[in-house]
Amino acid sequence: MAERLTGKPVADAIKEELKGKVADLKAKGIVPKLGIVRVGARPDDLYYEGGAKKTCESVGMEYEVFEYPQDIDQESFEKAITEIGARKDIHGILMFSPLPKHLNERKIRSLIPVEKDVDSLTLGSAGKVFADDPTGFPPCTPTAVMEILKYYNIPLEGKRAVVLGRSLVVGKPAAILLLRENATVTICHSRTKNLPEVCREADILVAAVGRAKMVKENYVKPGMVVIDVGINEDPDNPGKYCGDVDFDKVEPIVDKITPVPGGVGSVTTAVLCKHTVRACELLNGLA
Amino acid sequence: MAERLTGKPVADAIKEELKGKVADLKAKGIVPKLGIVRVGARPDDLYYEGGAKKTCESVGMEYEVFEYPQDIDQESFEKAITEIGARKDIHGILMFSPLPKHLNERKIRSLIPVEKDVDSLTLGSAGKVFADDPTGFPPCTPTAVMEILKYYNIPLEGKRAVVLGRSLVVGKPAAILLLRENATVTICHSRTKNLPEVCREADILVAAVGRAKMVKENYVKPGMVVIDVGINEDPDNPGKYCGDVDFDKVEPIVDKITPVPGGVGSVTTAVLCKHTVRACELLNGLA
Repeated sequence: MAERLTGKPVADAIKEELKGKVADLKAKGIVPKLGIVRVGARPDDLYYEGGAKKTCESVGMEYEVFEYPQDIDQESFEKAITEIGARKDIHGILMFSPLPKHLNERKIRSLIPVEKDVDSLTLGSAGKVFADDPTGFPPCTPTAVMEILKYYNIPLEGKRAVVLGRSLVVGKPAAILLLRENATVTICHSRTKNLPEVCREADILVAAVGRAKMVKENYVKPGMVVIDVGINEDPDNPGKYCGDVDFDKVEPIVDKITPVPGGVGSVTTAVLCKHTVRACELLNGLA
Repeated sequence: MAERLTGKPVADAIKEELKGKVADLKAKGIVPKLGIVRVGARPDDLYYEGGAKKTCESVGMEYEVFEYPQDIDQESFEKAITEIGARKDIHGILMFSPLPKHLNERKIRSLIPVEKDVDSLTLGSAGKVFADDPTGFPPCTPTAVMEILKYYNIPLEGKRAVVLGRSLVVGKPAAILLLRENATVTICHSRTKNLPEVCREADILVAAVGRAKMVKENYVKPGMVVIDVGINEDPDNPGKYCGDVDFDKVEPIVDKITPVPGGVGSVTTAVLCKHTVRACELLNGLA
C-alpha cells in the first residue's frame, strides 16, 4: 500500500511557521492582510474563499473581501482594482478568475501590483518565476506541490520528474520549480506520443491535466511518487470529487501518492497566506 | 553522413521576408530602427554588433550605436537607456551584457521598454514568453533554433525534444518554444543523472551548456536531429571555435546536425532584425 501524502500536516506546518512570522510582524505594528477580489458568487470561488479566510484567521492575518456584481463594467472594475492595489494595508491580492467575458481580464490582471500578486496573475510574476527571481510568487497550486514534496522529504535532485499538463497556472510553473530543485524535468501533454510510457519514466509524476482519473495503472511503476493536482467531478460518484489519477488502480502500484481530496488542494490556502506574509515582509523591507 | 543544417539559408530566407516587410513599412513612411547599446568594446560584442549592422543594412533597416565608457555611472547610464527607450524612431534595443560589475544591471534592464525588448532582457519579456503571449520576444538564440527547425521542416509535434542546459537565455526559453510546437520536452542539466541516456531519448537534442565538445557519441542515436547552440573556444584548435557537441564523433551517427560555426549563431542577427521589424509593426499598430 502506498504512503498517503496528505496535505493537512503540510498545511499545519506552514501555518505554524506563519503564526510566528505574523506575531513578529504584529510586534512591529504591521498586520499582514489579504485582499480577496471576487466578481459574482460562484460556489467554487466561495468554497476557496472560505478556506482562505479560515487560514488567515488561524495564523492571525487579516483579510478583506471585495465583491462585485457580475455586470460590473470595465472602467469601474479597473478603478476598484487600482485602488485595492494602492492600499498600504493590503499586502496580497487574490482575484478569482475567469472574470465575466465582457471584462478585459488581461488588462485587469495587469493592474495588480506585482509585489502583491500572491497567486501569480500578472505577466510580471510569470517573468519572475521563469527567471527564478526570488521576489516573484509562483501560483499557489504548484507551490503547494513543492511544499508537499519538501515536507515528506522526497528527494528531487537528479530525479526524473514528469509534469503532465502545460498550463500557465500549474504545469509550466511546476516544471520551473522542480528544475530549481535540480530535478530533470519532462513536460508532457495531450499531444505527447506514448504518454503512459513517458510518464513511467518518472520518479515523481505530477498530474495536472484536469481530466478525471486519466492516469491509469499503465502510467506508473513501483517506487514512483505521484502528486495529483486534479480536482474533477467524479464520473463514478456523482457529487464527489476525484483527481487526475485513478487512485484505486494506481495506489497499489506506486510508493507514495497524494489523495484527492485531502492532498494538494488542502495546502493551497496555506501557501496563499505564506505568500501574503512574505509580500508583507518584502513591502516593509523586512525580507 | 548527417545532413548539415547550416544557418545561412535560414538567415537568407528570414532576410528575404524582412526586405519585403521593411519596404512595406517604408512605403508608409516608417523606417524600422535598431538601437545597439554597448558599454566598453569587448571583441565578442563588436563581432556580434558587426553582424547585426550588416543584417540591418541588407534588409534596409536603420541602426544606431550607443557606446558608453566602461566607467559610466549608474545614474548617467539609467538616463541614457531611458532616453533611448523613449525615442520614437527606435523600435528595438539590443544591449550587450554582462554590464560592468559596478552597474546595477537588473535595474538598467528594467528600463528597456518591453515593447522594444527584442532580445528578451527584461522580466516583462520573460513573463510574456513563459505565458505564450504573442507580443513577447524570446531571446534571439532559442528563436534561431526554432527558425532552423522550421526551415528544415523538422517535425516537432509529439516528438521528444531534450534541451541540455537551463539558462534563461537559451535552455528555458527553448523548452517553452518547443512546447508551443507540441513537442514533449525534457530539460536536463549538470545535476541530471545518466545524462547520456536521457539525451538519447531525444528525437531532437538541443545542446546549450557552453562546454566544448561535451556531447559525445554516447549522447546520441541514429535518426536524431542535433542542434548545437554552443560557441566555445576549441580546446584542440587554438583560435578556433567549436560547439557543445563533439561534431566529429556525433555527426557520423545522427541524421541531421547544425555545424559550429555556421549553424545557430549565423541565424541570430536575422532573428534580431525580425524581432525589431515586428516590434516596429506592433508599435505602429500594424500587426
